[in-house]
Amino acid sequence: MEKGILLYEGKAKQIFQTSNEDELWISYKDDATAFNGEKKETLIGKARLNNEITSLIFEYLQENGVESHFVRKLSETEQLVKKVDIIPLEVVARNVVAGSLSKRLGIEEGTVLAEPIVEFYYKDDSLGDPLVTEDHIAVLQVATPADLQVLREKTIEVNKRLIKLFDGLNVRLIDFKLEFGRTTAGDILLADEISPDTCRLWDKETNERFDKDIFRKNLGNLQEGYQEILSRLGGASCTK
Amino acid sequence: MEKGILLYEGKAKQIFQTSNEDELWISYKDDATAFNGEKKETLIGKARLNNEITSLIFEYLQENGVESHFVRKLSETEQLVKKVDIIPLEVVARNVVAGSLSKRLGIEEGTVLAEPIVEFYYKDDSLGDPLVTEDHIAVLQVATPADLQVLREKTIEVNKRLIKLFDGLNVRLIDFKLEFGRTTAGDILLADEISPDTCRLWDKETNERFDKDIFRKNLGNLQEGYQEILSRLGGASCTK
Ligand SMILES: Nc1ncnc2c1ncn2[C@@H]1O[C@H](COP(=O)(O)OP(=O)(O)O)[C@@H](O)[C@H]1O
Ligand SMILES: Nc1ncnc2c1ncn2[C@@H]1O[C@H](COP(=O)(O)OP(=O)(O)O)[C@@H](O)[C@H]1O
Ligand SMILES: [Mg+2]
Ligand SMILES: [Mg+2]
Repeated sequence: MEKGILLYEGKAKQIFQTSNEDELWISYKDDATAFNGEKKETLIGKARLNNEITSLIFEYLQENGVESHFVRKLSETEQLVKKVDIIPLEVVARNVVAGSLSKRLGIEEGTVLAEPIVEFYYKDDSLGDPLVTEDHIAVLQVATPADLQVLREKTIEVNKRLIKLFDGLNVRLIDFKLEFGRTTAGDILLADEISPDTCRLWDKETNERFDKDIFRKNLGNLQEGYQEILSRLGGASCTK
Repeated sequence: MEKGILLYEGKAKQIFQTSNEDELWISYKDDATAFNGEKKETLIGKARLNNEITSLIFEYLQENGVESHFVRKLSETEQLVKKVDIIPLEVVARNVVAGSLSKRLGIEEGTVLAEPIVEFYYKDDSLGDPLVTEDHIAVLQVATPADLQVLREKTIEVNKRLIKLFDGLNVRLIDFKLEFGRTTAGDILLADEISPDTCRLWDKETNERFDKDIFRKNLGNLQEGYQEILSRLGGASCTK
């Protein structure tokens, strides 16, 4: 497998072409950003932690029948994935009220939801990734109602699997964001990453935060929190 | 009919008890507010204009089979309505992109929607009346999925009727906000007001604004715009 030209650089990852036109080479970055890019810092070791954690989670999902773009880990900070056309929606599942949901509905952070909920955000940095309803998505023409049903079902399935995984590690899965894309065959496939950058993960006993809220809210050392998740997942500890 | 004690004073209206416990006495105010109460002004004559316009519109809807809380006009600035338990959702229908939808989706104001859309906002001033999805409404427990279906259908029906009404007056109905409540019998009934405070109304030829955007965006004399709507509806001109 050969690394080709840089196709796209996002806030957290670089995407390279490969010799296979159906696959992409993802290289994780040591950058942390929050509040739509307003807060930004370089955190050495974050690339490795997110690459390892995402790889372990996609492997676990694969073993449990949930397909994704993940092909294999290429190095400490790189992975090979199937190329998709990303649907510009961030699909969020929530089990416990936190972050923007707490502000929007005036419900205290930590309140357990009777049922998990799913939200869609329009992935557009210049608009600040706004919350959108199914009616808005119809106006934007980025997904059909049938697509949204698939996104919902896949997200609820991922939620069930991840709750189980993290529960066994004494971690509460508060919420998370997924991205999906379309394959050349036209199927909707889980893509992007599943890491402490894109999940809220709290210790079951102490509610200690092991996710990007450490960075957003200045709660301490981000790499220590992410390393805790990696260790509980059975991954190697970071030497950098 | 006797006017009883003041039950509630909102931004645009005062609500009084009456001698009939199923009915309320609504008194319109000369106040204009925008941006969640941040901008505020007294505009003499607005109470009369909104009371007359709302009365004419509710009468028109009634004649066309759309029920509402409206019983009858009591004076230039007052009306009698059926008392309901207001469902704390602002139900918005949109035919043309304007205001917050334009900002949220990055679509130019004035873009005609292929289909009307319906949005729900949680009626809570302290939260800034946030947009909510059906999942959020389930969390808030203010309406069931079946209720939402009724709200949607009633709103789409009102939209059809109002488009027809205003089209005959050379006015484009861009969008509007409705409130609904529950009667003691448990039925969902259209309530509150339908006025240039709660609709966007543009002249069909010139796109001149005849609604609260005159106030929000300092586009000129609000009373003149509202009077134009009242006149086209066949109402008397304002002498105050
Ligand atoms: N399998 C894939 N095929 C194509 N693009 C992908 C795939 N997985 C993720 N992406 C995209 O890679 C880009 C880079 O990721 P990231 O740095 O997280 O970007 P962003 O700043 O947009 O969040 C994102 O636009 C993401 O949607
Ligand atoms: N038929 C009704 N029964 C009970 N309350 C009503 C009825 N119609 C309207 N209301 C309520 O009257 C209140 C006063 O109106 P308004 O001044 O517009 O208030 P607000 O500042 O909350 O918009 C609002 O809370 C509105 O929901
Ligand atoms: Mg990203
Ligand atoms: Mg009001």
